[in-house]
Amino acid sequence: MEDGARLETVDGLILGGTILCLDEAMTVIENGALAIVGDSITAIGAEEDFRRKFTSPNLIDGTDTLIMPGLINSHTHAAMTCFRGIADDMHLMDWLTNYIFPAESRNVDEELAWWGSLLACAEMIKSGTTTFCDMYIFEEETAKAARTAGMRCLLGEVLFDFPSPNAKTPSEGLAYTRKLLERWSGDPLIRVAVEPHSLYTCSRTLLLQARDLAEEFQVPLALHLLENLSEKKQLQKQLGQEAVSYLEELGCLNERLIAFHCVCLEEKEIRIFRDSGCKVVYNPESNMKLASGFAPVARMIQEGVCVGLGTDGCASNNSLDMFQEMDTAAKLEKVRHLDPTLMPAETVVAMATRQGARVLGMGDVTGCLKAGKKADLILIDLNRPHLTPMYNPYSHLVYAVNGSDVKTVFIAGNMVMKDRKLLSLNEEEIMRQVHRIAERVRKSLRKPA
Amino acid sequence: MEDGARLETVDGLILGGTILCLDEAMTVIENGALAIVGDSITAIGAEEDFRRKFTSPNLIDGTDTLIMPGLINSHTHAAMTCFRGIADDMHLMDWLTNYIFPAESRNVDEELAWWGSLLACAEMIKSGTTTFCDMYIFEEETAKAARTAGMRCLLGEVLFDFPSPNAKTPSEGLAYTRKLLERWSGDPLIRVAVEPHSLYTCSRTLLLQARDLAEEFQVPLALHLLENLSEKKQLQKQLGQEAVSYLEELGCLNERLIAFHCVCLEEKEIRIFRDSGCKVVYNPESNMKLASGFAPVARMIQEGVCVGLGTDGCASNNSLDMFQEMDTAAKLEKVRHLDPTLMPAETVVAMATRQGARVLGMGDVTGCLKAGKKADLILIDLNRPHLTPMYNPYSHLVYAVNGSDVKTVFIAGNMVMKDRKLLSLNEEEIMRQVHRIAERVRKSLRKPA
Ligand SMILES: [Zn+2]
Ligand SMILES: [Zn+2]
Repeated sequence: MEDGARLETVDGLILGGTILCLDEAMTVIENGALAIVGDSITAIGAEEDFRRKFTSPNLIDGTDTLIMPGLINSHTHAAMTCFRGIADDMHLMDWLTNYIFPAESRNVDEELAWWGSLLACAEMIKSGTTTFCDMYIFEEETAKAARTAGMRCLLGEVLFDFPSPNAKTPSEGLAYTRKLLERWSGDPLIRVAVEPHSLYTCSRTLLLQARDLAEEFQVPLALHLLENLSEKKQLQKQLGQEAVSYLEELGCLNERLIAFHCVCLEEKEIRIFRDSGCKVVYNPESNMKLASGFAPVARMIQEGVCVGLGTDGCASNNSLDMFQEMDTAAKLEKVRHLDPTLMPAETVVAMATRQGARVLGMGDVTGCLKAGKKADLILIDLNRPHLTPMYNPYSHLVYAVNGSDVKTVFIAGNMVMKDRKLLSLNEEEIMRQVHRIAERVRKSLRKPA
Repeated sequence: MEDGARLETVDGLILGGTILCLDEAMTVIENGALAIVGDSITAIGAEEDFRRKFTSPNLIDGTDTLIMPGLINSHTHAAMTCFRGIADDMHLMDWLTNYIFPAESRNVDEELAWWGSLLACAEMIKSGTTTFCDMYIFEEETAKAARTAGMRCLLGEVLFDFPSPNAKTPSEGLAYTRKLLERWSGDPLIRVAVEPHSLYTCSRTLLLQARDLAEEFQVPLALHLLENLSEKKQLQKQLGQEAVSYLEELGCLNERLIAFHCVCLEEKEIRIFRDSGCKVVYNPESNMKLASGFAPVARMIQEGVCVGLGTDGCASNNSLDMFQEMDTAAKLEKVRHLDPTLMPAETVVAMATRQGARVLGMGDVTGCLKAGKKADLILIDLNRPHLTPMYNPYSHLVYAVNGSDVKTVFIAGNMVMKDRKLLSLNEEEIMRQVHRIAERVRKSLRKPA
């Protein structure tokens, strides 16, 4: 080509495909192109122009794909993949007391956290998730696993009053969190939050210490909140006040608070959350499966609360596929309120991308495609019977695509999956190790409690 | 091998894998094996035994798979794949009047019915469905498409009072149905039903004629029923009585009646359905997306009504994946009634297999794995991160598996998909043709109504 000499070389170049930027303007570019330099997007435009401007040793053909920001799973417990489907279809207390707690206390160690987190990363990348927010035990292992996988992550050690396999006391849990904060400070992919489990499992003292630690490092404070009515009632009794007013009294209501679930948030509390800039994560599949209830998510969004989307852990979903979570998020409010206009597809895709990034305090980094943002993006293969034809790309993403339609994944400019082959992880080895761990879990559950 | 001379040759032989028979006893065979002769299953047993007993030119390795009956999609409109995602997130009347009806009246012809049905068959086989129940226009094309795909099907031309692109009058629709009944009589895969659209679109005369035709041929009479509250109210006004008592008066309540949706069935009506042997099809994803309401499915099953599961058409779902439908079926009743024990995984898998077969009057033919039944079965690839580990196969099928995990599919002893490659259909050609038709649909919607 005669113009060859004037082509600028970039590190990665995608040519062709429909680009959904998921910026505020919801820009859509047909026959688009995208250039990557280092870990960032440097330009987005028309295929025709970019063919005359750029060249790259990493040229990706985007024909017949949708190109969009990587999905953000704003609430999960990665290592719990090891307990996927361990117990289902039972009452919460039966499930927790007779299955989850014994399985955890007898089995969770660094090895389980490491392999379980790697498995979660493999599953998440293969279903288009590039960033996740995690809470569990031995989170140093999860941090290392995410780093190995090349995933972006906000994570924190779970804190509560009773002993965990990693912390005999709340103080040990706080000390472990401080170490995480110091060790991962400045990491390009991993950020650390302070994560008390919930108001019903943490004393006032622990909550205040957690708040102070989050304040000191200026990081998010993340917790489960008002997951179901019995929690709400228990807290009313225990605290002598509503959960949100308690959080206010503790000085926790600010733009760094991330509250998971919020099924039982009242109208007044929604406005308090909006006014204080608190963030919420919606987990509809977990809320359905555990029969927790219907979160007032359409109301929260109407009122201007920033709401992200999460799968919750694999014991209560039992999948980390954010496309299925989007499908459920779009449909559940419709039937609950008998109003099909609630939670339109565009809103739901924004929850799983741009809004999720804001929830995790990463709005400047990821969640939409724009020059200057990190190159966290996915290509979806449209050349499939169940994705034919396509009238509206947002409706397609929510109601028709599933995780296995994701073809290629970039995180921070690195290609971590190409044509469905993971490049950063050995999935066969990971599955082998988790099968071995599951055998140990199975045996442990046969012992009397 | 020294025993070689004594091996019996069968047409197909699957060795290894976990077999879920889905018979009344819910038999599960680890390290199982299954032999096929002609279109039928001749034996199911242990891999170890079958290696010493059988040989076959078609040997399938079942290692690391779940083997189960093919899924039965008990309610869809196959050709509507051509309208997948044409309009979403809007009120039913807006959706019908401004999108679906104009798109249909301007575009539906034999060509659309043919290619749309082929596309649906491709999508269904690729997601593990081996039998479907269809209602639409130009069903002769759907019958030929299903026959080409090698799928089992119960289908009928939609009947209503107003003209369709295939029938200027109800009499023409009935005549077309009679022709279908005669032409496909005795076919090994295709059966024909009489299918009035609904009580609110069919006159008493048309319903009586439809009933008589179904009676004459002893085939199912299938219709939409009580899909939402506004239909119920409209029928009360129009008929001066409840829908079910009207059906009773018309003489339609018997074991050959198949009612789709039944969202607004009352307690008393549930018992009438049970006592008359009427069949119901549950369509939770469509009911959610169109905001139709919550069908009392757990109650119907408790009362002993035979209930199958269906996706409905691709304009209201927008996918034909029965695994996602099972996931939703298991979760929706839980959250609605705040009871996680409702709709356990085993019940839901039975709805999508054995019970579905009974709904369609094919209980003697398909829906479970047993010697003597037709060989309609699927193999699910467990060697995937999101399916690791596995503690309970039913929970896995409902809460973790999705359609693209289906590896190999047999219908009536024919292998129609192997290692995800369709053997009976040319999917590239089908997608090309549907893209062409979608272009015409797109243009037609730009014209004023
Ligand atoms: Zn959680
Ligand atoms: Zn329908």
